[in-house]
Amino acid sequence: MTSAAGSTTDRADTLELLGLVAHLQHVSFGRLSDIAREAPELTQQWEMSRLAAGAVRRRDQVLARTSELGGDCAPRVGDYTQLLGDFDHRTQPSNWWERLLHSYVVDGVSDDFCRIAAGQVDDTSRQLLLEVLDDAARAEFSVAALESAGARDEVLVSRLALWGRRVVGEALNVVQQALAGHPGLMRLILRWDEEKTKADDGGGAANESTADASNRLFGELTAEHTRRMSRLGLTA
Amino acid sequence: MTSAAGSTTDRADTLELLGLVAHLQHVSFGRLSDIAREAPELTQQWEMSRLAAGAVRRRDQVLARTSELGGDCAPRVGDYTQLLGDFDHRTQPSNWWERLLHSYVVDGVSDDFCRIAAGQVDDTSRQLLLEVLDDAARAEFSVAALESAGARDEVLVSRLALWGRRVVGEALNVVQQALAGHPGLMRLILRWDEEKTKADDGGGAANESTADASNRLFGELTAEHTRRMSRLGLTA
Repeated sequence: MTSAAGSTTDRADTLELLGLVAHLQHVSFGRLSDIAREAPELTQQWEMSRLAAGAVRRRDQVLARTSELGGDCAPRVGDYTQLLGDFDHRTQPSNWWERLLHSYVVDGVSDDFCRIAAGQVDDTSRQLLLEVLDDAARAEFSVAALESAGARDEVLVSRLALWGRRVVGEALNVVQQALAGHPGLMRLILRWDEEKTKADDGGGAANESTADASNRLFGELTAEHTRRMSRLGLTA
Repeated sequence: MTSAAGSTTDRADTLELLGLVAHLQHVSFGRLSDIAREAPELTQQWEMSRLAAGAVRRRDQVLARTSELGGDCAPRVGDYTQLLGDFDHRTQPSNWWERLLHSYVVDGVSDDFCRIAAGQVDDTSRQLLLEVLDDAARAEFSVAALESAGARDEVLVSRLALWGRRVVGEALNVVQQALAGHPGLMRLILRWDEEKTKADDGGGAANESTADASNRLFGELTAEHTRRMSRLGLTA
């Protein structure tokens, strides 16, 4: 763990991140159960409900770690409820395919962001978070379903590409607001950026500004999103 | 296992019941995730999502047993989709309390029915089904939440009593239709009734009619429902 700050600040920042990840998993459970309800095939409903149950299990692992650190997720999570609720309100999917892509895009961006921040917390928390955030099963189902739909329907493909761009724009906006409203998260990103810049420049540039770190963060999140969209044959 | 029928018929009837229980658990997952979404408190949302995840686990245990018996649940479940979908359509809760009571009543009746039928299948299936159907956690949460609400609001109590009567009427109607449309289920109930009548009359009355068996079944389901409602302080 790289940190210029004292251990109390570290713990507070870690709890901030754990609260965010717990809530994101909880929100993901809600989204996945909506997808399960609307899935056209019964076996798809079963599969999606398993992924929803997996999000509950992961959320509870993060809540357990929070308790180990003597924290309480509930008040922390409350801060994010409004932000993520507004996001969902602005990006209401109008059919099952849009819902599937919505979840794929949002989980992708939020997992990437949290994975970057997780690099800067204590070993036990980091290991847990990386496990929780590395759930390939979720994405695989969406990729398979969306790919097979795309192969059959060109109009759907271009509509989904448009939808994906709208969702990712809003998602990156949420990340920006989350950073602005939660200094603990911003500190984790600054540390990540400092490490990254040192490694890239051979230790030259330290003390990066918040704006520089944000720029590099959004560059990274956008690149990963583009890679994910191309897996679906969609233009980011 | 008491049975006048051959083992092939037994297996078909068992698969019929397994299909029903699997689908009921799947539907219960959907209902519990709706309750989780609408729960006023975050910790209630967490708790309900855990119960929803439990329904997924139980459904998958039943699906696994179906595969062991060489069956396939998907086509069997399809038969029940329409029936249970119509039921949900006719009994749309208008608020969170009604939703909670809806789930409590429906899970109660359907678990009781399936428990009775489960007494007549092979040992391994029966043991699994009784485990799956004996999930006290679900009911306990609802009881605690509804009781505390009732203590605060007399108007809510009388509205919920009315709502409970409507839901149980429709639920018993679904049981009747399920029996009429699925001879395998009716055979399990006839066997249960035969065993029960023999025990009560010291072996006197055998070969009960379908109508007699149904009457006794509905008497039992209604009695159990009344007991459950009184746990909430509601008149059935």
